[in-house]
Amino acid sequence: MSYARVIAVEFNHCDPAGMVFYPRYFEMINSVVENFFDEELHYPFARMHVEEGYAVPTARIDTVFHAPSRLGERLRFDLEVTRLGRTSLHLTIRAEGGDGPKLTARSVLVFVDRYGRPTRWPEEVRAKLARMSTQTGREESDGRDPA
Amino acid sequence: MSYARVIAVEFNHCDPAGMVFYPRYFEMINSVVENFFDEELHYPFARMHVEEGYAVPTARIDTVFHAPSRLGERLRFDLEVTRLGRTSLHLTIRAEGGDGPKLTARSVLVFVDRYGRPTRWPEEVRAKLARMSTQTGREESDGRDPA
Amino acid sequence: MSYARVIAVEFNHCDPAGMVFYPRYFEMINSVVENFFDEELHYPFARMHVEEGYAVPTARIDTVFHAPSRLGERLRFDLEVTRLGRTSLHLTIRAEGGDGPKLTARSVLVFVDRYGRPTRWPEEVRAKLARMSTQTGREESDGRDPA
Amino acid sequence: MSYARVIAVEFNHCDPAGMVFYPRYFEMINSVVENFFDEELHYPFARMHVEEGYAVPTARIDTVFHAPSRLGERLRFDLEVTRLGRTSLHLTIRAEGGDGPKLTARSVLVFVDRYGRPTRWPEEVRAKLARMSTQTGREESDGRDPA
Repeated sequence: MSYARVIAVEFNHCDPAGMVFYPRYFEMINSVVENFFDEELHYPFARMHVEEGYAVPTARIDTVFHAPSRLGERLRFDLEVTRLGRTSLHLTIRAEGGDGPKLTARSVLVFVDRYGRPTRWPEEVRAKLARMSTQTGREESDGRDPA
Repeated sequence: MSYARVIAVEFNHCDPAGMVFYPRYFEMINSVVENFFDEELHYPFARMHVEEGYAVPTARIDTVFHAPSRLGERLRFDLEVTRLGRTSLHLTIRAEGGDGPKLTARSVLVFVDRYGRPTRWPEEVRAKLARMSTQTGREESDGRDPA
Repeated sequence: MSYARVIAVEFNHCDPAGMVFYPRYFEMINSVVENFFDEELHYPFARMHVEEGYAVPTARIDTVFHAPSRLGERLRFDLEVTRLGRTSLHLTIRAEGGDGPKLTARSVLVFVDRYGRPTRWPEEVRAKLARMSTQTGREESDGRDPA
Repeated sequence: MSYARVIAVEFNHCDPAGMVFYPRYFEMINSVVENFFDEELHYPFARMHVEEGYAVPTARIDTVFHAPSRLGERLRFDLEVTRLGRTSLHLTIRAEGGDGPKLTARSVLVFVDRYGRPTRWPEEVRAKLARMSTQTGREESDGRDPA
């Protein structure tokens, strides 16, 4: 059960080699996460950040780039919830173009309050994330979390 | 033996939470690598990309974010060559602010020609990289490389 | 006769004041122009830049910002062709949010070849632009062009 | 009497045509303004935005691009205070490379409080700006301001 979003490679993503400049991929990944929170969790960033003062900083992200992407390509991003902690969220995000896989990123987000303290997910958000998680039963787990 | 560069956190790096938006860290990391190629290897990107048609795409990068960075902070980046392959380069890049470590990134770059084919490092560049590598003796190594 | 495109204000557009950082508006404007070339002129940037070696650099852009835009707002951009020169294109681009106008930009683009020399628009593109221009009859005009 | 700052054109500024993508010039211009506030006015953005809740949004900016800039060029930016209003600031910013002028931008900034209301410049900042202004005597002027 994953969330999908298509992003077209536009001029502003591309470097002098005509390929996506890799920091732009992280802007794309952040956009995918942001739209996932809005469309799937019904918890838009405007409400989280501006109205409620929470945030979801990325604690770590490991990314493998399989092939370059070029101007005009349409990339399909798939986001999968791989694990849900008390205050953390493990995601795997893959991007694919017409010619095959472009990248695989594994990230850990942490839900924090306005002082940056890791904070328990709101119940409604947690319930939705738990249903999407590929590691159900683990979500109430461990004190080692977040990374 | 590492290469150091200071980058000030400016307005354009910061998000609505007043902290560096993490994709901007990758722009900073790229800038550090670019200046390392220019100042230490005497192989500026303008020559590599524009005149000679080579490139150094990032094949993978794993990053841990230790603490947020704020507007006005001065971050000291340290780049270390951790391994040199026939066509690849393993780097560890750390950033530190006044209050301690901000991030640790481990990346693998690959030297490619204009068709994207992994290509042996130019001899002069290789010699300099080998001297900086913390794993000397390994640089002529293995066929598994690049990752 | 104008071209419209909606862009949602996302996290990566916003500054520590929680509003769109104005250089990001120019990224949005460029995206609107790029999609206009693709969807209306059937002359995608990938073909223009990569296959054919042409470009459309912006020679000037004058922009008034009427009101700030905030995270989560949906901005409607309207692009109007205000004048067509032999090698130039004058555009007016307006953005509007739910609460009214955000910006008005007047720009001049120039069609150039791979050596940066202003070049006559391809006939098919010119014909489409002429039909959209609010100053028809002027398009074959003057030697003063581009600005 | 102007403020100067050099910015090197790096990889992240450049587009598939190998030239600076024009929205990146506005990031550079913002950086020049930000460093001007810090170094010349001794009013760093961190203090203004984060500690005091003020901001200096750009109300308008008109820019002419004279020539493209390329990877590896060093651009010298010159900022001149052309007029000081009760709450506004008119700037002219020029960038020049080794081969001549690159851009001329005329912008109007407005000093606003946390509710976005135009606010009188702090006295110390005003005094410094007045000394730099090329239109001294006009600084207490007119009700039309800001533009």
